[in-house]
Amino acid sequence: MHGKFAPFFEPRSVVVIGASSSPHKPGNDAIRNILANGYEGKLHLVNPKGGEILGIPVHTSIAALPEGIDLAIIILPARDTPGALRECARKGIGHAVLSAGGFAEVDEQGAGIQQEIVDVIRETGVRVLGPNTSGHTSTPHRFTSTFFPLGKIRPGKVSYVAQTGNFATHTMKHILTAEHFGVARVIGLGNKIDIDESDALEYLADDPETTGIVMYLESIKRPRRFLEIAGEVTRRKPVIVLKSGATEAGRHAAVAHTAAMAAEDRLIDGLLRQAGVARIWDYTHLILAGKALSMVSLPKGSRVSFLAPSGAMLVALADLCVRLGLEVPDLEPETVRKLQEISPPFIRMRNPVDIWAAASVKGVEFGYREGLEAVLKDPNIDAAVVVLMLTEDTGVPPFDFIVDTARKYPEKPVLVTFSGDKKYEDQCKEYVEPLGVPTFPEIEQPFEVISILSRCSKAMNRS
Amino acid sequence: MHGKFAPFFEPRSVVVIGASSSPHKPGNDAIRNILANGYEGKLHLVNPKGGEILGIPVHTSIAALPEGIDLAIIILPARDTPGALRECARKGIGHAVLSAGGFAEVDEQGAGIQQEIVDVIRETGVRVLGPNTSGHTSTPHRFTSTFFPLGKIRPGKVSYVAQTGNFATHTMKHILTAEHFGVARVIGLGNKIDIDESDALEYLADDPETTGIVMYLESIKRPRRFLEIAGEVTRRKPVIVLKSGATEAGRHAAVAHTAAMAAEDRLIDGLLRQAGVARIWDYTHLILAGKALSMVSLPKGSRVSFLAPSGAMLVALADLCVRLGLEVPDLEPETVRKLQEISPPFIRMRNPVDIWAAASVKGVEFGYREGLEAVLKDPNIDAAVVVLMLTEDTGVPPFDFIVDTARKYPEKPVLVTFSGDKKYEDQCKEYVEPLGVPTFPEIEQPFEVISILSRCSKAMNRS
Repeated sequence: MHGKFAPFFEPRSVVVIGASSSPHKPGNDAIRNILANGYEGKLHLVNPKGGEILGIPVHTSIAALPEGIDLAIIILPARDTPGALRECARKGIGHAVLSAGGFAEVDEQGAGIQQEIVDVIRETGVRVLGPNTSGHTSTPHRFTSTFFPLGKIRPGKVSYVAQTGNFATHTMKHILTAEHFGVARVIGLGNKIDIDESDALEYLADDPETTGIVMYLESIKRPRRFLEIAGEVTRRKPVIVLKSGATEAGRHAAVAHTAAMAAEDRLIDGLLRQAGVARIWDYTHLILAGKALSMVSLPKGSRVSFLAPSGAMLVALADLCVRLGLEVPDLEPETVRKLQEISPPFIRMRNPVDIWAAASVKGVEFGYREGLEAVLKDPNIDAAVVVLMLTEDTGVPPFDFIVDTARKYPEKPVLVTFSGDKKYEDQCKEYVEPLGVPTFPEIEQPFEVISILSRCSKAMNRS
Repeated sequence: MHGKFAPFFEPRSVVVIGASSSPHKPGNDAIRNILANGYEGKLHLVNPKGGEILGIPVHTSIAALPEGIDLAIIILPARDTPGALRECARKGIGHAVLSAGGFAEVDEQGAGIQQEIVDVIRETGVRVLGPNTSGHTSTPHRFTSTFFPLGKIRPGKVSYVAQTGNFATHTMKHILTAEHFGVARVIGLGNKIDIDESDALEYLADDPETTGIVMYLESIKRPRRFLEIAGEVTRRKPVIVLKSGATEAGRHAAVAHTAAMAAEDRLIDGLLRQAGVARIWDYTHLILAGKALSMVSLPKGSRVSFLAPSGAMLVALADLCVRLGLEVPDLEPETVRKLQEISPPFIRMRNPVDIWAAASVKGVEFGYREGLEAVLKDPNIDAAVVVLMLTEDTGVPPFDFIVDTARKYPEKPVLVTFSGDKKYEDQCKEYVEPLGVPTFPEIEQPFEVISILSRCSKAMNRS
């Protein structure tokens, strides 16, 4: 247990208010998720109808609940939420997740109801996540409050904070079905009338289960506080933030007034940078950076080597490195000698490494293994990208060598991408990712990700 | 038959010089490729050993060949290539693909051999593709000269010109195994001592089989000529170019002298833009833009609508549109009315379209179909992106509705991407792409591609 937010992430006892016996209703899926994740605390349910849901007896009212409950998940229509929250407070339940929508994000009436909740918080001191959140997750405690059917959520060491329900719903579904990494904590902020991104960051800063933090934000409620916490935590843990256009209305206006947005955004950009935050721009990078943080350590710097099976790729990717602020330095004479040794003489070996001839003459495994090992051993290199050519004719080796070679240099990230037959690319991903080597479907992505990681690393080592 | 390059693309009779009976040798794979593609012309083979390869009798010398051969594919070591080329010319074979490497790209000696070839060309007038090319392809003529084992190459209407062998080798393998589009012509330029990108562009400009041209270039040999042809053809066909860093040596230097490169590159950039070329920066876009050109028509302008299942995605993607120079305009009142009609009232419908409530309350198919049709019907919209949410719980509809709706508005590109369960995303891709609707694994990609297509469209309509 650590800190004031522990009851959200390590609750000993939980109640679902608005529990439903109907499959595919949020009040039912929330219970299934808790069971599927193997939550070991006590689970209570409330529904006026009473009875039993999924084998658990249902209390007919909040008043009828036993004492000592840490956290309430309130899945009720907006209008019933303030009353239920007040009753929870009266019952001594100090923490609540408010899952319904229909508040300030919708209309005047919703804004009024939201204000009632703010009043309850002020009067009772109850801490609230939401409203309009699809929940949160804490895999070290085998717990989730999400009402989106996810089943077992894969544990990991990266945590997500998002001003969107996506990371507790369809984006998490995508991660669980398309990727091999998991999460430590996921915090869906929703309308953040109480707990906001600063609180979330503060919690994750001291969370021993979280080694990397990825955030999606549309606004920053208390910028000074946020930057203060960020400025401190980024010296210890990577913090990656996608900050997109303010509010929906603001964004809509911003499209018409791009100049104004650009000015405001430049300010935010500068402050985030100063605080050591690695800002990103693509939603997809929220997932890819999370994957990389889950599998590799941060590079010590931005000096990259890469092996590709084509001169054109070498040139295009070297251009990309320049655009991304990555260096492609010269290698030690010893490394060049080693590379030249494994290659037919008609390719001049250097960084980046044209591995095609070595791989086709001496075998894909031999060429890539020796080449990768040579550059990883080089003191001028902080990270390596392997563009693996996999086709039946050129040969598809067992993929252990990639994992084994990468593991010999745990302080240097090795990222893999492909060129060739999709079938073998998929096989390689399935094999190496569970063993800790991240792969990327598009050849630009490993470089984009190393650029993000190296900014994190730079922030961590700043004076 | 059209133009002086026809013997390369529509040869009536071909000879492979350096034919090999050993499987997995280039001189054997080249023959297999020709057979696999169903080439209907006459195929001759030359190898001093004679005999028979894959059921085809082998001539022991070039001199022993019959008359009337259009094209020679010379797969010999570099040092034997000039002599063979001269013999071909003597035999009246006016066109040759020189597949070996080992010329100027390697060393002084190779440069000397390359000069010998230049001399043969000057003396005999023979036209040469290469050397150091992995070949070319012409699916309308069921012909390919590539020595990389590809089997049957899927026909299509987009043509690739590349200063790299990739598009006749592993990148083509990737396209054939991971994508559902095909190619008309592929031209691997190699060291381009004779035929260069200007010749290739000139040929494709008047090629009725080619409706879109995608090029990867590291240098432009005759910039004035290239820009002259480009300036003309871009009024009729889209031309998309990835221009990467000069020569290998130049590139290496350029990394150290970024400022100089930037200045030179700005010049090239301006000239390409003036010529109506849509320049791109990512290798991956060579493939994705080719896919889009193969399946959709060019948008009339850059006004985009999109449907996404999450407010966060709407905001992040609207930001992306601004960065990409795309407009996300207001919709007609009639369209807004229609959208509001299909949605629960608590979502305010506008462009971009938050389709989550409509899809979850009224069904994924109904919500997306009605929403997509409404925005496609709107005169303010040139193209639409669908971010399709596919999870078991939210429902996985049959995918016909996407194809049917897209086909109703053939002049407006519809591009699909996903959020949710990978399994259904793959199923959707497999279903809709062969029916002409392109899908993209990352949510940013459809917007990046529309931005490229709309630049092509703008070039086509310039005065």
